[in-house]
Amino acid sequence: MAVSEIEQLIQLLSRVPGFGPRSARRATLFLMNKRESQLLPLIQALQNVADHVKTCPICGNLDTEVPCHICSNPKRDKNQICVVQDVADLWAFEHADLFRGQYHVLGGVLSALDGIGPDELNIQSLIARVQSGGVDEVVFALPATVDGQTTVHYLVDRLSNCHVKMTTLSRGVPLGGELDYLDDGTIQMAFKSRRDV
Amino acid sequence: MAVSEIEQLIQLLSRVPGFGPRSARRATLFLMNKRESQLLPLIQALQNVADHVKTCPICGNLDTEVPCHICSNPKRDKNQICVVQDVADLWAFEHADLFRGQYHVLGGVLSALDGIGPDELNIQSLIARVQSGGVDEVVFALPATVDGQTTVHYLVDRLSNCHVKMTTLSRGVPLGGELDYLDDGTIQMAFKSRRDV
Repeated sequence: MAVSEIEQLIQLLSRVPGFGPRSARRATLFLMNKRESQLLPLIQALQNVADHVKTCPICGNLDTEVPCHICSNPKRDKNQICVVQDVADLWAFEHADLFRGQYHVLGGVLSALDGIGPDELNIQSLIARVQSGGVDEVVFALPATVDGQTTVHYLVDRLSNCHVKMTTLSRGVPLGGELDYLDDGTIQMAFKSRRDV
Repeated sequence: MAVSEIEQLIQLLSRVPGFGPRSARRATLFLMNKRESQLLPLIQALQNVADHVKTCPICGNLDTEVPCHICSNPKRDKNQICVVQDVADLWAFEHADLFRGQYHVLGGVLSALDGIGPDELNIQSLIARVQSGGVDEVVFALPATVDGQTTVHYLVDRLSNCHVKMTTLSRGVPLGGELDYLDDGTIQMAFKSRRDV
């Protein structure tokens, strides 16, 4: 009754990343206070997404179109595939507005610790896409973690007989990075792959 | 189309307090990835709140019952009224689980800067409640800001002929407060109102 309907909303909101119990309470109050301008439009927007968003069967992106607006965009290069861990990384890449090729969402990276092997990831479909031809370059935009790099090595191995160029993002000091805030590994890597100015 | 339905959701979410554009994007992805377990229940919970939550005509609390479950609870003392700025503060008070009386939500505090005068707040209804009798004590649990204290002084003045006890929350060092992190004002206040041990 009474409390529980509001409490239920707070509990659901507090499971959303970025929210805890306290901020979920604040958000609930905000939404209740702005019923017409925020709460009702938000319900509608969530419902639209729930009704229309599908996983793209080609690249694994989430979109209301099938195939997604990137795969179906004739202006985008078909000969470059950027391999990303998840849709969030795809969006981050798109937001940076630099890449005009296609994507492939793995759905994670290989992880012995979490028991994620090649069969749990969209690797077979990536190999099929590359083997079907027309692809010149596969860019691995995977996390700079041990698991991410293991995944890159594994994919390079699996794609080695496809005769495509394979690249990965460069490593080094991030833009605006202060050296004394950086970890040793990054500094070592940035020094090792130093370049002429 | 495609992007805009997802973008619309991100934009609406990013206006919720605690969210920015980046965390709204993360939350949207989380909800899309957990359609059945999170997105659909969240829509239902928001819809329930939108359909059923009303402002209590007595105290100003938000609840699915009218009057709210606090005002209608026969076990709660009718002779104590705790005056709070908004529903968030009422909830914080309830969460601390110490007060067994009634509340009165002002809807803000007096503020010359923001142009909030007595007519913008639920002051008339507070005076009517106190005047109607049966109230022994009014506890002012308003913010320890200049505006909050101005509001307390104003309300004390308006209620002075009602012959009720009027109290306010004590000021001092918060629980777990480290002195070197506290502002001068708090230290001065805590020293001035020091007590015997």
